[in-house]
Amino acid sequence: MSTRKIPADPESDPRVKAVFDDIRATRRTDFINNLWRTLAFDPALLESTWGEVKALMAAPSHLDPLTKEMIYVAVSIANACTYCIHSHTAAARARGMTDAQHAELLAIVALAAKTNHLCTGLQVPVDAAFDAGAA
Amino acid sequence: MSTRKIPADPESDPRVKAVFDDIRATRRTDFINNLWRTLAFDPALLESTWGEVKALMAAPSHLDPLTKEMIYVAVSIANACTYCIHSHTAAARARGMTDAQHAELLAIVALAAKTNHLCTGLQVPVDAAFDAGAA
Amino acid sequence: MSTRKIPADPESDPRVKAVFDDIRATRRTDFINNLWRTLAFDPALLESTWGEVKALMAAPSHLDPLTKEMIYVAVSIANACTYCIHSHTAAARARGMTDAQHAELLAIVALAAKTNHLCTGLQVPVDAAFDAGAA
Amino acid sequence: MSTRKIPADPESDPRVKAVFDDIRATRRTDFINNLWRTLAFDPALLESTWGEVKALMAAPSHLDPLTKEMIYVAVSIANACTYCIHSHTAAARARGMTDAQHAELLAIVALAAKTNHLCTGLQVPVDAAFDAGAA
Amino acid sequence: MSTRKIPADPESDPRVKAVFDDIRATRRTDFINNLWRTLAFDPALLESTWGEVKALMAAPSHLDPLTKEMIYVAVSIANACTYCIHSHTAAARARGMTDAQHAELLAIVALAAKTNHLCTGLQVPVDAAFDAGAA
Amino acid sequence: MSTRKIPADPESDPRVKAVFDDIRATRRTDFINNLWRTLAFDPALLESTWGEVKALMAAPSHLDPLTKEMIYVAVSIANACTYCIHSHTAAARARGMTDAQHAELLAIVALAAKTNHLCTGLQVPVDAAFDAGAA
Repeated sequence: MSTRKIPADPESDPRVKAVFDDIRATRRTDFINNLWRTLAFDPALLESTWGEVKALMAAPSHLDPLTKEMIYVAVSIANACTYCIHSHTAAARARGMTDAQHAELLAIVALAAKTNHLCTGLQVPVDAAFDAGAA
Repeated sequence: MSTRKIPADPESDPRVKAVFDDIRATRRTDFINNLWRTLAFDPALLESTWGEVKALMAAPSHLDPLTKEMIYVAVSIANACTYCIHSHTAAARARGMTDAQHAELLAIVALAAKTNHLCTGLQVPVDAAFDAGAA
Repeated sequence: MSTRKIPADPESDPRVKAVFDDIRATRRTDFINNLWRTLAFDPALLESTWGEVKALMAAPSHLDPLTKEMIYVAVSIANACTYCIHSHTAAARARGMTDAQHAELLAIVALAAKTNHLCTGLQVPVDAAFDAGAA
Repeated sequence: MSTRKIPADPESDPRVKAVFDDIRATRRTDFINNLWRTLAFDPALLESTWGEVKALMAAPSHLDPLTKEMIYVAVSIANACTYCIHSHTAAARARGMTDAQHAELLAIVALAAKTNHLCTGLQVPVDAAFDAGAA
Repeated sequence: MSTRKIPADPESDPRVKAVFDDIRATRRTDFINNLWRTLAFDPALLESTWGEVKALMAAPSHLDPLTKEMIYVAVSIANACTYCIHSHTAAARARGMTDAQHAELLAIVALAAKTNHLCTGLQVPVDAAFDAGAA
Repeated sequence: MSTRKIPADPESDPRVKAVFDDIRATRRTDFINNLWRTLAFDPALLESTWGEVKALMAAPSHLDPLTKEMIYVAVSIANACTYCIHSHTAAARARGMTDAQHAELLAIVALAAKTNHLCTGLQVPVDAAFDAGAA
């Protein structure tokens, strides 16, 4: 059940087709997952969203691809986004995440949530030593 | 301003002193940050919390120390925990996080939040291909 | 799957019937959606919740009806409430939201989430110029 | 720093004065905390908010007053509301919460957050046995 | 649909069997719910998670068992964890929560969320009187 | 206190100066608020973030400027982002938001949060009538 119908023939729109072609080429697969197929209802939003994901997640950068996907999963769990948890857990596996690393990722996310709630509940004052804004 | 007063002389309690000694030994520093000093009001809670953080974050494991701290920061941002954002950003820097990596960490967290809200707003149905629970 | 069974014949309770009658009259429809049918298990909670929704969302006010529904959708997305996302997206459409406005609503929600996480991750200090509490 | 200036002489408005008088009488104190003083900028919002808080939190009901305040604190921590964490932790203490109970409240909130993130990360399917909606 | 397959025969692992035996003995039931069956993929994570839940939720303490479960439900709702909402609402019922108490729990959670958003939107400054950290 | 120091002379970098010039021209003011000054530590992140904000919030579109700012505030409250609440409440006022509209915005955000938590706590099943994905 979604709030926006997946277009029946999205690639009849040349802007959508261009994005889908780029997804297939970048990921070396014919599989276009539902996020992109749903976003096809608004080609501009599809283009900008894919462009941003491609630039940050698919290009060489200062972090390795698996680390980037695990960070993505961590945020998606904390924001309770079912779709992104599934799609980025799959992406992390595709980049080599082992079962042991998955268990550890989940354990860290869970521990962070635990101490987040503890510190927030205690309203622990931030140590002056942590202030990066100081001279 | 906090909901629990930091004890004036926490190490007069031998259980607290033992934990603080372990923190100093594990981290090779004399600095005990406010979370631990505040938790000293309840030695059992202090012991279990430090024990869990030490086991997961300070021991060799399937993920490297910097990756673990960046995952911790990511969750803390999504949960809006001011204290943990500060303390774990500092910890990530102590483990070698460069300015470029910090910028990339923030960019990934921000992008994940963006697509989290987009997928949740659209209620994008999860692709069957992502179901790890299937046979 | 819910944590509270929808009552089989809710309108046998006159307090529930009165609320349902008011919903039908206010919205000019025979459709009573599942939130109200579920809340029928507690007539007092049903009355107060509907009363509040009616007073704020269905009466003339300082904001137009479509703007009010879009604000409601925005909060529901950020709080990851599946039910409210669906029901208030439908309500916004019933008040005239076009496909282009829906796409823009989603884009703003997503952008806000992005900069929310960025500002929280950076712990950007609030500019004094923004303080409405100042004299 | 706030987004709305606290009115200088809020009780010059008779509707505000009536609410403040009721707060003082209900709580048997002369202290009016900042939430109510800030809300004085909109008497209708002040009246409805106080009315709801009074009816639910200050009247005899199916849960004892301390339990109600601890539930309030728990939600406020999870929603990261600094003001409500402070005001309702103080209210719980005023209703007799001991240091040991405070520590236990925080430990439960932290554990719940931990398993919340674990279950969400694993997307654990809900057991059919938990479905209260079934016949 | 889950991100981790429930193991087919989890109790073939003696560490898993020991935890499951302890769950059955502690709860006096043969029912092992899906969280534990899913966590069986990582016996260490299973052991530590169950150990923590058992110590805090199943042992005599400073709060009564029903209060503890209601606090757990409150946090799970605020964190939008579908699984925990279901499992801990069922646990609260098993500890005697009546329909009237359930309605009141939900009403308090909803009211807290309302004033959380109100205080956060107004950025109400915390009253000095609430500072437990002061001398 | 922030996790990244605001650069002392950000406009010595021509990329930063170009963005700041564009902010001043677009907003017709000399005031550069702290978000942009902080982001100056990474010109690429500064450019992309400002570019996205400008395109969505400062250009003519399908929603009026005030509605867009109020949606932004609503999301920022739900995500508990102190900085964005302040900056976008100020932006909404600059676009004409009256005190009465501000009160109503806050009341809608608070009510949405209330019913979000209520629906999530009850796990109300989504009505088939709301499924926009159906044919």
